[in-house]
Amino acid sequence: MLVDKLKRTNHCGDLTIKDLNKEVWLIGWVSKKRNLGSLLFVDLRDRYGIVQILIKTDEIEVPEIRNEYLLNVRGIVRKKDVPNKNLKTGEIEIEASEIILINKSEQPPLIIADETDALEDVRLKYRYLDLRRPVMQKRFITRAKIVKAVHEYLDAHDFIEVETPILTLSTPEGARDYLVPSRVHKGSFYALPQSPQLFKQLLMVAGFERYYQIAKCFRDEDLRSDRQPDFTQIDIETSFLNEDEILTLTEGLIAKIYKDVINYDVKLPLRRISYDEAVNTYGSDKPDTRFDLKLVDIKDILINNEDKLFKDNKYIKCFKIENVANETSRKVQDNYNLTAKKFKLNSYIYLKFLNNELEGSITKFLSNDEKNALINRLSLKENDLVVIAVSNVLRNVNFGLGAIRSELAKKYHLIQDGTFDILWVVNFPLFEKSEETGEITPCHHPFTRPVDEDLDKLETEPYKVYSYTYDIVMNGFEAGGGGLRIYDQETQERIFKVLGFSEEDIQRKFGFFVDALKYGTPPHGGLAFGLDRLTMILSGTDNIRDVIAFPKNLSAVCPMTNAPRPVDDAQLKELGIKVVEKEKVDE
Amino acid sequence: MLVDKLKRTNHCGDLTIKDLNKEVWLIGWVSKKRNLGSLLFVDLRDRYGIVQILIKTDEIEVPEIRNEYLLNVRGIVRKKDVPNKNLKTGEIEIEASEIILINKSEQPPLIIADETDALEDVRLKYRYLDLRRPVMQKRFITRAKIVKAVHEYLDAHDFIEVETPILTLSTPEGARDYLVPSRVHKGSFYALPQSPQLFKQLLMVAGFERYYQIAKCFRDEDLRSDRQPDFTQIDIETSFLNEDEILTLTEGLIAKIYKDVINYDVKLPLRRISYDEAVNTYGSDKPDTRFDLKLVDIKDILINNEDKLFKDNKYIKCFKIENVANETSRKVQDNYNLTAKKFKLNSYIYLKFLNNELEGSITKFLSNDEKNALINRLSLKENDLVVIAVSNVLRNVNFGLGAIRSELAKKYHLIQDGTFDILWVVNFPLFEKSEETGEITPCHHPFTRPVDEDLDKLETEPYKVYSYTYDIVMNGFEAGGGGLRIYDQETQERIFKVLGFSEEDIQRKFGFFVDALKYGTPPHGGLAFGLDRLTMILSGTDNIRDVIAFPKNLSAVCPMTNAPRPVDDAQLKELGIKVVEKEKVDE
Repeated sequence: MLVDKLKRTNHCGDLTIKDLNKEVWLIGWVSKKRNLGSLLFVDLRDRYGIVQILIKTDEIEVPEIRNEYLLNVRGIVRKKDVPNKNLKTGEIEIEASEIILINKSEQPPLIIADETDALEDVRLKYRYLDLRRPVMQKRFITRAKIVKAVHEYLDAHDFIEVETPILTLSTPEGARDYLVPSRVHKGSFYALPQSPQLFKQLLMVAGFERYYQIAKCFRDEDLRSDRQPDFTQIDIETSFLNEDEILTLTEGLIAKIYKDVINYDVKLPLRRISYDEAVNTYGSDKPDTRFDLKLVDIKDILINNEDKLFKDNKYIKCFKIENVANETSRKVQDNYNLTAKKFKLNSYIYLKFLNNELEGSITKFLSNDEKNALINRLSLKENDLVVIAVSNVLRNVNFGLGAIRSELAKKYHLIQDGTFDILWVVNFPLFEKSEETGEITPCHHPFTRPVDEDLDKLETEPYKVYSYTYDIVMNGFEAGGGGLRIYDQETQERIFKVLGFSEEDIQRKFGFFVDALKYGTPPHGGLAFGLDRLTMILSGTDNIRDVIAFPKNLSAVCPMTNAPRPVDDAQLKELGIKVVEKEKVDE
Repeated sequence: MLVDKLKRTNHCGDLTIKDLNKEVWLIGWVSKKRNLGSLLFVDLRDRYGIVQILIKTDEIEVPEIRNEYLLNVRGIVRKKDVPNKNLKTGEIEIEASEIILINKSEQPPLIIADETDALEDVRLKYRYLDLRRPVMQKRFITRAKIVKAVHEYLDAHDFIEVETPILTLSTPEGARDYLVPSRVHKGSFYALPQSPQLFKQLLMVAGFERYYQIAKCFRDEDLRSDRQPDFTQIDIETSFLNEDEILTLTEGLIAKIYKDVINYDVKLPLRRISYDEAVNTYGSDKPDTRFDLKLVDIKDILINNEDKLFKDNKYIKCFKIENVANETSRKVQDNYNLTAKKFKLNSYIYLKFLNNELEGSITKFLSNDEKNALINRLSLKENDLVVIAVSNVLRNVNFGLGAIRSELAKKYHLIQDGTFDILWVVNFPLFEKSEETGEITPCHHPFTRPVDEDLDKLETEPYKVYSYTYDIVMNGFEAGGGGLRIYDQETQERIFKVLGFSEEDIQRKFGFFVDALKYGTPPHGGLAFGLDRLTMILSGTDNIRDVIAFPKNLSAVCPMTNAPRPVDDAQLKELGIKVVEKEKVDE
């Protein structure tokens, strides 16, 4: 059989000038070929890289060779007259002495190279070809290296990897669960977990002390470019540690991941800033601090200004960008109207500091004193740009300016490539007002521990209660987060009450969990990283589908398998369910 | 906050006589307490083990202490007058100087010790307490160690761990898929994968060369004691290797697992026996060869016997068990009637060799020559027992005797505890006749490669076609299995035709997969281990639920969460489905 005859002494991508004159056997796909009369040049590609094969067609027997044909090649490593600087193997080529055709290929429907011409849906439909592109393989090697670092670090720190169920109960987060009808118990449904939250806490109750899992999670929500219906998180939980100990332990993990995967030295300890500071200073709970552009409160400067805009709005904040004022046209400014609207800013305003003077539509409403105070407060220098936002809601001013801050930083290239900015944002509020329903809702989840000092405000001023929580932020992305958990029944029940859960709700949704807290539950806490997002950050892509082998598109469809699809009536009958509403599709 | 004050210098289970007179801080749960006047003895338990705490209640302040209360204890390591041989820490005890109560516990509903009195449904309902039992924690540590060994070995051998989707298409195995209704595409369904088979093969098409995954799999079938709706497999696939290379690579993995997890040296290479030999010699395709009891064909000896039983049945085989004849009563024999019936044996018969004579109901039909031939063929010695089976179907004789062989080996304690018997069974037939439908069906799956020499029999004598397949058998359990895969479209289509798949079936079920074979598919093959079963074998339990943290019971229900459960109509409406048949339950 053919596979018994295959030989392979080296990988294509590993050969260098050190292998000169060696005889090698390679296996790989034809990535490119050029025919120069009696000379045929083939770029042969395997998982490890690409090497050029030189074939003297007059001298050896040559099978048919086309793109993506799979070959077994014997040959001698030769020095190239003109090195190819774009290839790791570019100093050498292989002079072929024997070529065995292993398998043929039809003409592939996309260019199989780092740069491809294919639209994403074509790439996803022929994913098995898209994944042959070296840049894609590198991303999955990055992903695997991250997971390897996680295993090594956590195993070494006495964590036990435990699997929690996929067929389980609707998670407390409630809506957006994927359901799975039960055949055995018709009319009943499993749910796919949005996270292993309850189970990992139960493992702490069970005395496992240190748990982790590379956990599959599922969320049936409308997709954004960085979301997928099924995703993976690095899920961690510990007993007996305080917040500082958990953060320190996690920092070791982060440093190891960066070192092992991209050889980057993360400086420890990481900076920790409070939620309030993050929001007030950077206008975001996941601030990108690779660039400055700090928010500055200027309401006090304008406190006596009679202009309606300043008089009627309680909050006025701004930030400056140095040395870009003369590049900033009205058109640039208009680009951010949508952002301003999204964050419900009553107004946002630009000022330029040019020729030692403030310029801009509102300058006529500013007194000289006010202008000078602004110039001083912001230490303005020639050509600086100032972006001001006003609103009666502090949150809107902060988050609105924060969003514009990020967009302008990109526009003006204030972010240096290849740098990493990693920090903790800690001490989140326990509750927030749901934007959809206006109801009180947990910032994280209902098992998060309020800080001891705020416990007495739980019922009276719940929005002023902070929690033992922490998010890890990398380059402005929330890469992970967690907190300490409630470990006594009494506090847990108070939280449920504040959230308006009825006794019946509690029993139905997580009665078993509340019961578990009765039996000597240890103080515990943990966190979870988004593996997909971490891989995106470390492999330098901003498309989550680039780091998932067989992803769904933005319609939650896998273009390769066409899942989801209609199924036989017989199959539904066996499950005791019926389709009552069908999507209209053009077939 | 309390957790800031906790101190811990050592783990309970780690302390030995070497720590004598040290001051230690421990955290643990009260496993047992005995009150002897002014002396209180507490067994304190953490994940690492149990140690005895001696408390002089007159001398220090002692909080309320009951079973499963969680304590932080400071104390001095003292030598015990009378060592407790049952505990690793039994030579010492801790004389407490300070005791902090961390959390209280209600009276647990089950005994939290290796030996518990609880029924399994109670254990599963209070799983978080059941998992506190040291014997259970050990099993999950074993499980985690297996996974760690897998990661280390495969990472070191250049495998890339890649995750394949959970929300996907109905797998080719067809029935028994769990379905997930799509909210976005009403009337359409995802399916949970029964295995990542197609995806791992596509990763080979994609040029990943060496893939593995600790993969979640799902099968909606009626449960047996060793089955679960969701289970985990160690999934492996490689390109360019032949069967021998794959087996050798895998043997290295197996040896590492046994060494790392239970410090057992597996002798390599493993024995490889063919499917035919396994079935003919041991009556099983997963033979337990820790005991002999080989099947012997004796039809030729009885070829002229006129008794109806021997005359009318084409196949007569037997095995002997040494030195048990006088323990074997009619009652013992009757125990195996059910097995005989299950395997459709026309008859099974016992003979005893006692006082140098064959005894048994059929001896009167045997001539002296026949008796002597039997005695010689089987080398019978005093007190040997012979079990004979007859049928017109060879398969029934083999598998029926095989089943009785295993049961008798257990009954007569022929299996030495703590020994491991690991071997390959290779070269399975490609097809078998489905017992349910009588139709031709793949022994493994439709992507298995027929051996080259049998290719021309594919359409004419399909049942005589063998395949490049291999199962790894441990102590009579199938721990894993796999094979080489078809890598050319032509063979794949011939197989589909033999299986009676219409062109439309093929296109609908795995059109995308057949398409993928067009683009230079590499020769590839792999295998999968059942992680749950492997853990069972290595941790010495025969209950799969003992090695799954939160398992379902035999009704596919999780007694802790009560999943699956009915859901709100609103939730179903959003999915466009309706329940048309409800299980009748007594509420």
